[in-house]
Amino acid sequence: MPQLGLLPGRAWTVLLGLLRPPPGALCIRAVRSHSQVAEALIASQLKPHQEKSNFTIKTPKGTRDLSPQQMVVREKILDVVVSCFKRHGAKGLDTPAFELKEILTEKYGEDSGLIYDLKDQGGELLSLRYDLTVPFARYLAMNKVKKMKRYHVGKVWRRESPTIVQGRYREFYQCDFDIAGQFDPMIPDAECLKIMCEILSGLHLGDFLIKVSDRRILDGIFAVCGVPESKFHAICSSVDKLDKISWKDVRHEMVVKKGLAPEVADRIGDYVQCHGGISLVEQMFQDPRLSQNKQALEGLGDLKLLFEYLTLFGVAEKVSFDLSLARGLDYYTGVIYEAVLLQTPVHAEEEPLNMGSVAAGGRYDGLVGMFDPRGHKVPCVGLSIGVERIFSIVEQRIKTFGEKIRTTETQVFVATPQKNFLQERLKLIAELWDAGIKVAIKRENLVAEIQKRLSES
Amino acid sequence: MPQLGLLPGRAWTVLLGLLRPPPGALCIRAVRSHSQVAEALIASQLKPHQEKSNFTIKTPKGTRDLSPQQMVVREKILDVVVSCFKRHGAKGLDTPAFELKEILTEKYGEDSGLIYDLKDQGGELLSLRYDLTVPFARYLAMNKVKKMKRYHVGKVWRRESPTIVQGRYREFYQCDFDIAGQFDPMIPDAECLKIMCEILSGLHLGDFLIKVSDRRILDGIFAVCGVPESKFHAICSSVDKLDKISWKDVRHEMVVKKGLAPEVADRIGDYVQCHGGISLVEQMFQDPRLSQNKQALEGLGDLKLLFEYLTLFGVAEKVSFDLSLARGLDYYTGVIYEAVLLQTPVHAEEEPLNMGSVAAGGRYDGLVGMFDPRGHKVPCVGLSIGVERIFSIVEQRIKTFGEKIRTTETQVFVATPQKNFLQERLKLIAELWDAGIKVAIKRENLVAEIQKRLSES
Repeated sequence: MPQLGLLPGRAWTVLLGLLRPPPGALCIRAVRSHSQVAEALIASQLKPHQEKSNFTIKTPKGTRDLSPQQMVVREKILDVVVSCFKRHGAKGLDTPAFELKEILTEKYGEDSGLIYDLKDQGGELLSLRYDLTVPFARYLAMNKVKKMKRYHVGKVWRRESPTIVQGRYREFYQCDFDIAGQFDPMIPDAECLKIMCEILSGLHLGDFLIKVSDRRILDGIFAVCGVPESKFHAICSSVDKLDKISWKDVRHEMVVKKGLAPEVADRIGDYVQCHGGISLVEQMFQDPRLSQNKQALEGLGDLKLLFEYLTLFGVAEKVSFDLSLARGLDYYTGVIYEAVLLQTPVHAEEEPLNMGSVAAGGRYDGLVGMFDPRGHKVPCVGLSIGVERIFSIVEQRIKTFGEKIRTTETQVFVATPQKNFLQERLKLIAELWDAGIKVAIKRENLVAEIQKRLSES
Repeated sequence: MPQLGLLPGRAWTVLLGLLRPPPGALCIRAVRSHSQVAEALIASQLKPHQEKSNFTIKTPKGTRDLSPQQMVVREKILDVVVSCFKRHGAKGLDTPAFELKEILTEKYGEDSGLIYDLKDQGGELLSLRYDLTVPFARYLAMNKVKKMKRYHVGKVWRRESPTIVQGRYREFYQCDFDIAGQFDPMIPDAECLKIMCEILSGLHLGDFLIKVSDRRILDGIFAVCGVPESKFHAICSSVDKLDKISWKDVRHEMVVKKGLAPEVADRIGDYVQCHGGISLVEQMFQDPRLSQNKQALEGLGDLKLLFEYLTLFGVAEKVSFDLSLARGLDYYTGVIYEAVLLQTPVHAEEEPLNMGSVAAGGRYDGLVGMFDPRGHKVPCVGLSIGVERIFSIVEQRIKTFGEKIRTTETQVFVATPQKNFLQERLKLIAELWDAGIKVAIKRENLVAEIQKRLSES
């Protein structure tokens, strides 16, 4: 006990009390001696450990436990997110962790191989949900809901090669907000971007930027540049890499790997390297080639309106029209967006982290119709907050600054130096519990507790 | 619009505003005409629905979505439960939805067949967690935690034949509270029972009773009555049925189906039909046969101490020593308990529901040691609240009384009768959002909204 010198007079009295043998513990002692007998019996009932430890005790690959410290951080982050969703009038919804396998089939494009399937144990073929969007669309179609603003916080599972250092896991939380139904054009879309701004500001993650584009604009660009329709998907996934590799490398991939004519690639390059605000939208409207494409015009019209609303919402300066934005998922049909942190380390002494996007979403007007027996469509737009990456950033910051996290909310410790006050102590504790006060019983750790409290105060 | 007669003068003005064509909507109209083009294009990209609807859109067997109404009820219930856990100083913990298959093997006895396995897609063999207790024990062993008071609210999965009417699902929430570590005997056990009482009282579910017993007492009874050790398990599972069928039927099963000698069955019957308070514990101490069994004595000693503490906590009258209590799970080693509602319908006009137990738990001193490579044990005791059954009860009550549930927390609606105030409206809404006020945009439903508000006020 090297710290004992720190104890004041009263604490010493407490300590001396602890060192005395507990009086009047006859009954308890009797029970204890039985305990040894029972322990031997229990041990004989359980399998001997030699047989059990031939496998490593761990969590499955790409998953983790959340410790009490991490739970506190997570709850604070989720609180900011959910408060914002509720402020925008969203209702809560929950769906099962798994869906019928067919529900998820052909919704995620190339990523479908990352879906976790359940073993066929007789009965239905099931898969773990891959996101919260497809279950939401299934819910809307199944219950014939034509209009709904809902949020959903829940785990999703993807069999990705986990690079845990970047905050990527095979099991992770998603926080989704979606607006389903027919509304004035682009009003729900603008609200989604406003929500992303509110949450990212509220979490104090430093400066951020939201890139927006529209699936129809990208398709329009491919069309007017002369990409054969059969190569739209492949070229789109090349464009998607522009946030990680240079245009030179992307162009090389398009021409050498995907067999695109060099002049077509160059034409694409002229477009996808552009980014800017509302003025870029205007510029694209005047573009002699793009203005001939109906799809692109449609997308540009929507973006123009979107920027008007974003200006009214006071967030237009956080949003950039970025023609390189592609987004992976198949189900997007209109506006798409993705938020990136501009300078992850808020303070110079922190290690910089490449966090990629921390929130993303878009419009998916065809998904609900895919589940409806008559193909009735419900237009939808939504966003997903990548809380796992945000956890990593906040955790790292806490580590860097050595911040202390309280994992319990205890208000009162009830402790006595001697065991023979046990009855009084238990009565008092029960009274406090019944009055709604957060109490903890302390007996064996009293000295350590006193030291801890003293060092904290 | 049959309700229009209810509208006051001002509302009529609003309505007339709505009937006028929206002015200055040139840009929006342009976009709309594009929308029709885009819709056709999108439709051609998606698979035609004829091919999709050859399967039913549903949730997997034994699972369900939680609607916004149900989410509100669930959140209120979980709030009572988690507040109590925190009041007792518990820290939060989260574990993955699935574990390595081997972690769950040989922990659940006969119920192991109900575990959901994941498909072998290369890599580790995984299973969905069956409860929150085994993952907790795995966490303690893996992180060499010797002492911890934790709560965990999460979904678990069991491939049971679902009888949904009784609130039994294949996916359901558990709310667990556990105390791991060496403490003064029976103090943590008494705290668990106190917590069950606080939660069941706090949820206003009507009167309840907690049955307690001890695995060692039941084993002791079997031993002194002359049950061959090979039949302990089979006879235990017969005893377990005493809350559903009569002693006569249980006896019949023991003798006819399980080949027990009739006089042995009768001896068991003398014991397992007993229930009472502390006096029954004393009576069993004096029992000429049972007092010869070391295991049983150990269990009785612990129960005696438990009742003393329950008296100090003011909850002894809610607890009954019930010799018929068996509990299914293999890992229990000492005290076991189960809470039952005594009169589910609080009011006579409600349909009576047989809800079975709504909370249960016990001591499992051997489980952590099964995961530790050196077999180091960490004694544990805990409880699980069966919130799913509690949901059913509360839902039924709400239905019976026609209670209204608010699924959003909106404080302000911003609405104008005419579209040309859109800019002002959006600016105002953004200001309110930024001030933390819960606002909803209302335009297209204005008349319906006014009617709704009028009828509610």
